[in-house]
Amino acid sequence: MSRASAIDQFLQENQGAYLAETIRLCAQPSVSATGQGVLECARLVEQILQNHGFQTWKIEGYGNPVVVGRAAGRSERTLLFYNHYDVQPPEPLELWDSPPFQPEIRDGVLYARGAKDDKGEFLARIAAVDAVRAANGGELPCGVLFVVEGNEEVGSPGIARFVQDHLELLQCDGAVWEEGGIDFEERPGTSLGRRGILALELEVQTLSRDAHSGSAHILPNAAWRLVRMLTSLKDENEQILIPGFYDDVQPISELDLELFRRLPDSEAHLRETFGVRGFVGGLTGFELKKAVFNPTCNIQGITTGYQGLGNKTVIPARASVKLDFRLVPDQNPTDILKKLRAHLDTEGFTDVQITYTDYMHPARSAADHPLVQLAARTAEEVYQKPYQRIPMTGGSSPVYAFAGPLGIPVIDAGVGFGISNRTHSPNENVRTKDFHNAARHLARILDGFAEAR
Amino acid sequence: MSRASAIDQFLQENQGAYLAETIRLCAQPSVSATGQGVLECARLVEQILQNHGFQTWKIEGYGNPVVVGRAAGRSERTLLFYNHYDVQPPEPLELWDSPPFQPEIRDGVLYARGAKDDKGEFLARIAAVDAVRAANGGELPCGVLFVVEGNEEVGSPGIARFVQDHLELLQCDGAVWEEGGIDFEERPGTSLGRRGILALELEVQTLSRDAHSGSAHILPNAAWRLVRMLTSLKDENEQILIPGFYDDVQPISELDLELFRRLPDSEAHLRETFGVRGFVGGLTGFELKKAVFNPTCNIQGITTGYQGLGNKTVIPARASVKLDFRLVPDQNPTDILKKLRAHLDTEGFTDVQITYTDYMHPARSAADHPLVQLAARTAEEVYQKPYQRIPMTGGSSPVYAFAGPLGIPVIDAGVGFGISNRTHSPNENVRTKDFHNAARHLARILDGFAEAR
Repeated sequence: MSRASAIDQFLQENQGAYLAETIRLCAQPSVSATGQGVLECARLVEQILQNHGFQTWKIEGYGNPVVVGRAAGRSERTLLFYNHYDVQPPEPLELWDSPPFQPEIRDGVLYARGAKDDKGEFLARIAAVDAVRAANGGELPCGVLFVVEGNEEVGSPGIARFVQDHLELLQCDGAVWEEGGIDFEERPGTSLGRRGILALELEVQTLSRDAHSGSAHILPNAAWRLVRMLTSLKDENEQILIPGFYDDVQPISELDLELFRRLPDSEAHLRETFGVRGFVGGLTGFELKKAVFNPTCNIQGITTGYQGLGNKTVIPARASVKLDFRLVPDQNPTDILKKLRAHLDTEGFTDVQITYTDYMHPARSAADHPLVQLAARTAEEVYQKPYQRIPMTGGSSPVYAFAGPLGIPVIDAGVGFGISNRTHSPNENVRTKDFHNAARHLARILDGFAEAR
Repeated sequence: MSRASAIDQFLQENQGAYLAETIRLCAQPSVSATGQGVLECARLVEQILQNHGFQTWKIEGYGNPVVVGRAAGRSERTLLFYNHYDVQPPEPLELWDSPPFQPEIRDGVLYARGAKDDKGEFLARIAAVDAVRAANGGELPCGVLFVVEGNEEVGSPGIARFVQDHLELLQCDGAVWEEGGIDFEERPGTSLGRRGILALELEVQTLSRDAHSGSAHILPNAAWRLVRMLTSLKDENEQILIPGFYDDVQPISELDLELFRRLPDSEAHLRETFGVRGFVGGLTGFELKKAVFNPTCNIQGITTGYQGLGNKTVIPARASVKLDFRLVPDQNPTDILKKLRAHLDTEGFTDVQITYTDYMHPARSAADHPLVQLAARTAEEVYQKPYQRIPMTGGSSPVYAFAGPLGIPVIDAGVGFGISNRTHSPNENVRTKDFHNAARHLARILDGFAEAR
């Protein structure tokens, strides 16, 4: 019997046990936004890792505890699984058909808060580890590291510092991110990159207090000054005007362009979902796909002056805007922040205050990396469909916190992100067949990782 | 004895009686914002007018009743007094030293809601009418019309239509507005014009719902579109870019320029009051004074996207701005609205919706009109200081609703607008000496009006 067959057989025979463990973990609340059950859940995750042969560390000092599990393998190479044990708040409770923390399987679907995001994903990986061990005479072919954090649903504020502080413990050769696998049309695939983000609040004050608009011919208006400042940041063709902004942007490779060509078209889907008349810059088709490599300067919101009913004849004394810049490799958010400040000063906006900042770096794995090729080959075996490699997704994620300092490629693989899982919503769920296929795929990646170099 | 001496003697001897009537009127609440006491107050005003020899009309259909009083005079010429019987809400009550509707005189100062704005002003005029009648053998030298409305403190929404509907009843040759007389340094003067206003709300929608900012490279952002639209309205030198916007702006006359030169400098006062570093366009001195003849495009407020703490990675689907344009003679707000719409359409902003509008026309009296000269000569007699003619004030007022349809000059004269009257605030008050001087000045204007042509 081939190792793949042995893996499949093990997972088939033991599916019930891993679903039962998922149910047990989902029954433990762990809402990071409120703190409900978080510490108990961290202990339970540590226990599960120990039960499955991992040495564990529960590390404090970065928000909720980070649980790390390590198991040695035949090879010196190590694969890291990133997961999280915290969940979104379950509210509104009245919209759940069964209580969020009383997991229930109905018609082959497991319903519970965390069933998919991210407790189901975690247990599918535990199942994969056991299956690979069973198919390899009780020994893992490579080392396995789990990082299971408890702050993901509140933005992973401590994770970058955690990684920087534990580079030795976390030494590894590749990582599989928390989820992924198949999309909403059940096509397997992975995202090879996430854009970085620089989020800011900018504020300007022109008067010590609001004034009557009868003096608008002489008293400077903060809202107008904010508009002028914004206009200085980006032109009408979406080109960002901050000197040096594009200096570190890398060209799109031929392989990435080819991958974009192969990706299904999402134009009609987007038009319908968002009622869009025209896309930014009039983009369509192929141009629309590869535009994710364009960094952006997005207005999240503007606050100034009177916002009630009717009108109020006032000159606003203050105006503020929340912005986010999405950054592409190799743009560096702290460098962009410096360039923004220099631009504002050069343009005479020395009075514009930057009152808040938050950032993540962009992260990117090569589309032809052996880990990506391994994930592709094994996904096509499990799902019997071509594997999609998405060169870049538009959002940001703490992937960079691992990929950068550890110098590793990171892929997505798991229970699938596009099925109607109702992640973050009432009736969150996972189909047991997706759980099973995710474990089959993950086990094949783990089984082949020692040689994928 | 001269008529002026007779007037002064009458007012000196009867001061107590008119203050007593003021106290009685102020004791009647009349809060237009809440409706408290408004109808009772309209009846009381009508009674007062009748008691002082006026034929009256209480006219419904324009919000709270408008009380009109008419008394004939020797001449065919008629002077109109505009006043209002409604007051601002008295809250916060705990900041009053005596209850707002229990008028009280302390140290020569009458305290009550409405003591100045506008019940005290109204009774000072009644006193002036009686004094002039007494000094002229019981007969008025010209006709007198009172228009006392009840919606001034809520923006006089019905007054323009009221005037249009009653042109015959309101036929007159000049008007004295609700207040005015002396400023905060007790200098007598008048404002000869008020700018018009076109107040608007503009809204743009680019998506059917907010989207994740990870899609900012393709999904159009309503806030950015609003910023672009605003930038199309006005350049960095404060020039409004709507084609035809300045077509009807009249040049500033030599006399007006001379009047500006004579006006005291308010630059230091403004710098201190509003903590201004620099005025619009770097204006100073004389340029700052005459800038009131520049029409403006003012942002009152902007509403779009996320305005809470921190950041939210969202592309706003909607954005709106409240604007007011202050207009100068002979700009017409309905014409400007048409030009704005045409400009938006030409610039490709056909999707920008105008969701709210409100307006007033500019109004202006000639600085050398005989009524102005009369007010100046008599003010200098009463106050023993040079009279200031302010060619234009920055705000707007329903003066236009009278001046335009009736074709009359309108001046300010009354108890003074710059003394610490705490108008609209707790402890609203009027000094009895200012009440007395206002009546002396108003009586002189009335006494000379038949010949002021």
